[in-house]
This record gives sequence, C-alpha cells and structure tokens, in this order.
Amino acid sequence: MNDIIKAINNRVSLRKYQEKEISKEHLDIILESAIKAPTAGNMMMYSIIKISDEKTKEKLSITCDNQPFIKKASVILIFLADMQKWCDYFKVCNIENIKPLGMNDFMLSINDSLIACQNAVLAAESLDIGSCYIGDIMENYEEHKTLLNLPDYTFPAAMITLGYYPENMKRVYRDRFDKEHVVFDEKYKKLDEDELKEMFKNKEENMPKTNPFNVNSFGELIYNRKTSADFSIEMDRSIKEGIKFFTKK
Amino acid sequence: MNDIIKAINNRVSLRKYQEKEISKEHLDIILESAIKAPTAGNMMMYSIIKISDEKTKEKLSITCDNQPFIKKASVILIFLADMQKWCDYFKVCNIENIKPLGMNDFMLSINDSLIACQNAVLAAESLDIGSCYIGDIMENYEEHKTLLNLPDYTFPAAMITLGYYPENMKRVYRDRFDKEHVVFDEKYKKLDEDELKEMFKNKEENMPKTNPFNVNSFGELIYNRKTSADFSIEMDRSIKEGIKFFTKK
Repeated sequence: MNDIIKAINNRVSLRKYQEKEISKEHLDIILESAIKAPTAGNMMMYSIIKISDEKTKEKLSITCDNQPFIKKASVILIFLADMQKWCDYFKVCNIENIKPLGMNDFMLSINDSLIACQNAVLAAESLDIGSCYIGDIMENYEEHKTLLNLPDYTFPAAMITLGYYPENMKRVYRDRFDKEHVVFDEKYKKLDEDELKEMFKNKEENMPKTNPFNVNSFGELIYNRKTSADFSIEMDRSIKEGIKFFTKK
Repeated sequence: MNDIIKAINNRVSLRKYQEKEISKEHLDIILESAIKAPTAGNMMMYSIIKISDEKTKEKLSITCDNQPFIKKASVILIFLADMQKWCDYFKVCNIENIKPLGMNDFMLSINDSLIACQNAVLAAESLDIGSCYIGDIMENYEEHKTLLNLPDYTFPAAMITLGYYPENMKRVYRDRFDKEHVVFDEKYKKLDEDELKEMFKNKEENMPKTNPFNVNSFGELIYNRKTSADFSIEMDRSIKEGIKFFTKK
C-alpha cells in the first residue's frame, strides 16, 4: 500500500483538534494542492475563503446546524462555486448586455469546487491535519451571503474544518456499504428487495435505539431526517434560492 | 514534499494511454479508495458505473462532445449522484406515500460523487494510472439515461477516463491562476479591473490566434463558448431536465 492509498484509508472525519494553529507553511501547501486540482476547461471556477477569525468561526458554528466543534478548528476553508470573477472579467473585456449564466456554469463550478476541496483534504491528511466536511454550509444562503460578502454568481459548495490530529488519538472508522452495492458493471443495476436488505443490514443492526422520530427501522429514521428535519428543509430552500441566479437563462 | 503532495502536483489530465488494460488489482484499489471517501452523514449517496465495454465507450466518446480519446481509455468510471437506492429502501421499510426528494439530496449526492471521484483520481495517479474528467457527461441526459439504464433519482455527476501513462511521457502542465486571485482572507473579495487584468494576463497573452468566434480577447472567447457553443447550451438544458425530479418538493 503506497502512501496515497494509506492516507485515503487512514483519514477520518475529525471533529476534535489539537489546540495548535496550523502553520503558514502547512496551510500554503494545502491551498496550493487545492489549486493544482483538475478543473473544467482549466477555468478554475471557484474561490477559496480562508477563515481564522474567531467571530466568523463562532457564527458558522451556529449557522451550520449548531455544531460547536466548528469554532474549535484552527482554520475553516469554504470552497465557493464562483462565476462572478468571470462575469466581471467579461465586462472588463467590454462585452455588453452579458447574458445570464446557466446551470452548466453552476454545476461545473460546483464540481471544480469539490474536486479542489478533496485535494485540500488529502494534502492536509498527509501533514497530520484532520478535516471535516460541513454540508450545512449550503443552508442559510442569505445569512452566509451577508457574512462572507458573497456576490450573486457564487455559491458555497463545500466547507471543511481543519486542525492537527490530537496526539495518540485512536481513529474510529465508520463502515461503508459493500462494493457490490455501490459499483455496477457497464450499466446501472436496480437493487431488488433482498439486495437492499443485505445492503442495509449493518445499518439496521447498529441503529440507535432512541431517535427523535420514534421509528423502528433505519430506513424510517433516514426518511424522516431527509423529509422532516429542519436542516434538510432549510437546505432545500437555501439551495433553491442560491441557484436562482443560474436558472434565468 | 511527501508522496501525496507529489502526486497532486505531478498529475496531468491524461488523454493518451498505454494500450494495456488496467489490472484487476489496480482497479480494485481505485474503487475501494473511492468508497473510502468522506460522505455526508455516511450515506454514500452515489453509485459508480465501471465501463469497459467497447460499444459503450465508443458511444460515450460521441455523446460527450465528440472526444475520440474517450474510447481509447482502458476503463471509464461514471460517478452517479444516486438517491434511487435510498428511495427503494424506504419502500422496503414499508414507508407509504414517499414524499419527493429535494435539492438538498441532489446537491449532497453530487458532492459525495465528486469527493469519491477525486479519491479515485489520486489513487489512480499513485499507481501510474492517468485520468481525465469529462464534464460533458452532464450533457444528453436522456440519451445517457437510456444507455446506462439510469433511474429517475440519479444524475451523472462526474465521469473519468482511466489508463496507464505512456512510458517516458513528458508531462505538460497548464498554468493556474495565482493564489492571490483564488484564495481570499475571511471574506470574499471582489476583484477590481486592474486585479482582473492581472489575473487574466497570461491567458490573454497565450490565447489562440484563430478561434471559431473570431474574437480578439480571451474574455470574449470564453464568453462566447459559455453562452453560444452547442455543448454549453446542451449542458444547461440537460442538467435542468435531470434535476426535475429533485425540484418537485
């Protein structure tokens, strides 16, 4: 197993960090690794906001579904899908009556952002710096727009917290679905009832005994979380608001 | 520079491969590395379609904006945002009248797909296997749906071609924007005219002398490509069609 495969396998989503600032040298390596990521048409349709201000971290720990550990991270990186710079440059090139951008630009810039972000995650891992993705950055669109000064043609695609791994930490790995339920040959394969039961067997066996929805199966638990939990409803609303600028075409 | 940072820096988008099949051992490592990627709520809202059938590769080389090199890849991986398995499992759990899923599910599953895909890319790189992202898989939604047997609650988020690097290949690295134009401290920084000119200086200097739009600036070239080129118009349409199932909420 080479060092890259090792890093991929060793990583955990880290929510507890050493109380030690990430060195400038390490942070530069992480950011440069992000920038080296593949990008559609070499356009780099993203920006990275590097946050170490305590007030902003505190605020994000609240707006991102109340997760206090967020503010304890040494650094937070937000990867913004960003077509604003391009639009602004089109104006610099004297293009008049610029047409609205479309969902192609939105999705390519989202993809660019995530690809760059995962490079940052693995570069960090190689420096003993742990990370955690915070999908909740896609909630509260208007509040984040104000907080981070975001122009219209941007959308916060991904956020990661970064901090050194605690010394001698025992890493706990969460199970993944079996490859047979994730990887299909040549075409998509719709799983039948028996295969689905097999796929979710471990999840059912290990589901928490008490849960806010008072349901008995893992499927019902996730269904309720997806369709009734406040953060899910808010994320749906927030994304629809955020992509408005990209659906005017 | 450790091996991970080296791999990140050494990678190029590879469009020419050795005529040698990727070994089962290597492909397994790549797929397992993808599956190890971080995923929102540990839900793995994606599937991977592994394609080595010559006819399907040939077809994709046409539907993905006519790029003949695609069919020369040893293996193609398509990362599908996939909520279908979850919906099917909800039914297995006897949930009735399942509510439509929303944009939160769409975006989280897109993010999951891209994060897993970039793990695959870097794992491949560590095994001397090159890759190229094909954003055009987001075009021709209906055709890909039929070709790959895709159910409604899926969307092809990313596609990569894979093949061994040719021996003694000289890698040519494309320039990236300077960090100062990509990374911002604490808040988004809107770039002014001088900064934008500086950002795009190399692009302007190196832009092709002839181009299908007969324009003189790099800004105009990209603007035309984004707003008038067939593949851009098609990608916008195709994505809007594909997300319909996630906007019924």
